[in-house]
Amino acid sequence: MIYLDNSATTKPHPDVLASFQQVSDKFFANPSSIHQLGGQTEKLLLKAKQQAAELLKVKEEEVIFTSGGTEGNNIAIKGIALEHQNRGKHIITTEIEHPSVYEACESLKQLGFDITFLPVNQDGVVSVEDVRNAIRKDTILISVMHINNEIGSIQPIQEIGEIAKAHPKIFFHVDYVQGLGKIPLQLNNSGIDLCTMSGHKIHGLKGTGILYIKSGTKLFPLFHGGEQERKIRSGTENVAGVVAMVKALRIIKKRELDEINHVHSLNKYLRDNLSDFPLVEINSPSNNAPHIMNFSLPGIKPEVMIHMLGEEGIYISTKSACSSKLADESRIIAACGFSKERATSALRVSLSYDNTIEEIDVFLDKLRKGIDQLKEIL
Amino acid sequence: MIYLDNSATTKPHPDVLASFQQVSDKFFANPSSIHQLGGQTEKLLLKAKQQAAELLKVKEEEVIFTSGGTEGNNIAIKGIALEHQNRGKHIITTEIEHPSVYEACESLKQLGFDITFLPVNQDGVVSVEDVRNAIRKDTILISVMHINNEIGSIQPIQEIGEIAKAHPKIFFHVDYVQGLGKIPLQLNNSGIDLCTMSGHKIHGLKGTGILYIKSGTKLFPLFHGGEQERKIRSGTENVAGVVAMVKALRIIKKRELDEINHVHSLNKYLRDNLSDFPLVEINSPSNNAPHIMNFSLPGIKPEVMIHMLGEEGIYISTKSACSSKLADESRIIAACGFSKERATSALRVSLSYDNTIEEIDVFLDKLRKGIDQLKEIL
Repeated sequence: MIYLDNSATTKPHPDVLASFQQVSDKFFANPSSIHQLGGQTEKLLLKAKQQAAELLKVKEEEVIFTSGGTEGNNIAIKGIALEHQNRGKHIITTEIEHPSVYEACESLKQLGFDITFLPVNQDGVVSVEDVRNAIRKDTILISVMHINNEIGSIQPIQEIGEIAKAHPKIFFHVDYVQGLGKIPLQLNNSGIDLCTMSGHKIHGLKGTGILYIKSGTKLFPLFHGGEQERKIRSGTENVAGVVAMVKALRIIKKRELDEINHVHSLNKYLRDNLSDFPLVEINSPSNNAPHIMNFSLPGIKPEVMIHMLGEEGIYISTKSACSSKLADESRIIAACGFSKERATSALRVSLSYDNTIEEIDVFLDKLRKGIDQLKEIL
Repeated sequence: MIYLDNSATTKPHPDVLASFQQVSDKFFANPSSIHQLGGQTEKLLLKAKQQAAELLKVKEEEVIFTSGGTEGNNIAIKGIALEHQNRGKHIITTEIEHPSVYEACESLKQLGFDITFLPVNQDGVVSVEDVRNAIRKDTILISVMHINNEIGSIQPIQEIGEIAKAHPKIFFHVDYVQGLGKIPLQLNNSGIDLCTMSGHKIHGLKGTGILYIKSGTKLFPLFHGGEQERKIRSGTENVAGVVAMVKALRIIKKRELDEINHVHSLNKYLRDNLSDFPLVEINSPSNNAPHIMNFSLPGIKPEVMIHMLGEEGIYISTKSACSSKLADESRIIAACGFSKERATSALRVSLSYDNTIEEIDVFLDKLRKGIDQLKEIL
């Protein structure tokens, strides 16, 4: 199998699975139970939180364990919106957000909120000036992703953070799901108030994630209940999932440090080769995140190519997995100003640290053969 | 170890853990990915949903997989409230709900909702007449739990369902977390529109659950995004968790059928013996759910007794795990009209199918010795 769909999800690391198994079996007690068995489990949970905080260079109290990226993004956006609506009902975001940000913002219109969706340039990057100019008296939240999940464009988070710092009453949320473990992002003293991370994109488990919430940030919880996770995310803690998340975080952070150049090499190799391919039009900008390569094959239905490659055990995707069953056109590619033909024929290769040049060679070979075959039918 | 805290959480069944492990490793693809690997995972997800629907005797489309009981209760309550607030902002519930219902309702006051918390009688049971009389023109939701998590009292869900049927515009939500696998509850044609279930209370995994939502029920999702789970619960499906949940459901449903009398025997044995114990005042009504036995030791701090028993490897709890770190007094025992002394000295023994008479004997022996020891100090 040649798995090149790592931005949709990753294969769990064996050590992550082993940790989950062990904790589920040995430390199954409810960490809220006051007996000794509950105490041991609680200790494990607190240790995991401490480790996560160290790895992310934030305070322990700023780490909230969630069920994943969609939950994190929704807690951040709706939590701020519902809590601070009396101060204003305006939110600034972009046209290229993941559906869990985009649709969460859209949904707030039903509750009377006004959303500004900022455009992006052809490289898929939002303008810092546009963000600044969009700020109104009733703006309470700016939500901008770090790395776009379809084309891999990197947003100017640091600069937007400076704007947020200059407007202390406006909260700044970053969807960091695609960036975590690939491109470092400073959280403390960055202007960022909320930052979403997901476990299953970093060889962790589905159903796990972290939401960074800067100390002192007040929000309306989506889950009320037993007051776990500083009352922000009630519900019996998934301790085994938490330990698995932190294990995945530790492993990916080390690989980010040691092996990111390998991913850059794979990306360059892909880009250099694809540039010479018939039909191929590369959508990802050249100063892209290294693990995402998006290109279109105008005239060829992407699902046909994906099926052909799948027959050979090679797995890539159209658009993002979370949008793959919706309308044909990629909202992201269209937002970059590309033609409808290009926006409906996009393919995404997304890499992990485990992919090799040999795998890319096989992929390129099969892709070229597929293009030749489908070109004849065209 | 003698584990008698099964209403806080249960030990995962080995088969459940094995399923999780296998699916995480072999079917790790994103079920929304359109390649063959995604297709296989999606097939597994659909099969799991079909099996859950069969086990619960509902339609497949009525099964929504969640991250647990707290999420299920919050989706149900806030989802109905936010979606139907234009029709009315009145909700009826009881004084003895789990915090994830009680606090979710409380939180809605901040958004302008009016909540009626109905009292219960000394047996911890709400009056059907009280429910009927509480209905107003602006009532949009009734939320009543099936089995109380602290004392095990069984609520008249069927009768309240009849009231709900007579008021088709009012939604009826049932927190079935403690009842699942112990006392059957008919869902279809019951008047119930929403019903919450949790995985980790039935020897499944933490971070898993099911929310039954009757066909045609419209609600405001807590998670917007990639439109998974019929747009009600977006987010990459935790397929391994879903399979584990359904495996746990299948096992517990079989045990409910074959072995519930064993739990009744344990309960009777406990009650008969505890009745003769010094100090003990039994709080659980006699027509109780069989797996929960609540009693007070007035004058003795419950945490001291729990610690003493814990030293012997016997684990029981005070109140519910989700409330155990809050105020000393049990809101539930107080709502039943018991004295403050009784409400602050309550202990809960909660059973699973795996507990034995021999374990109960050891527990009773150690409890008696503990009481004798602490009585001397009193």
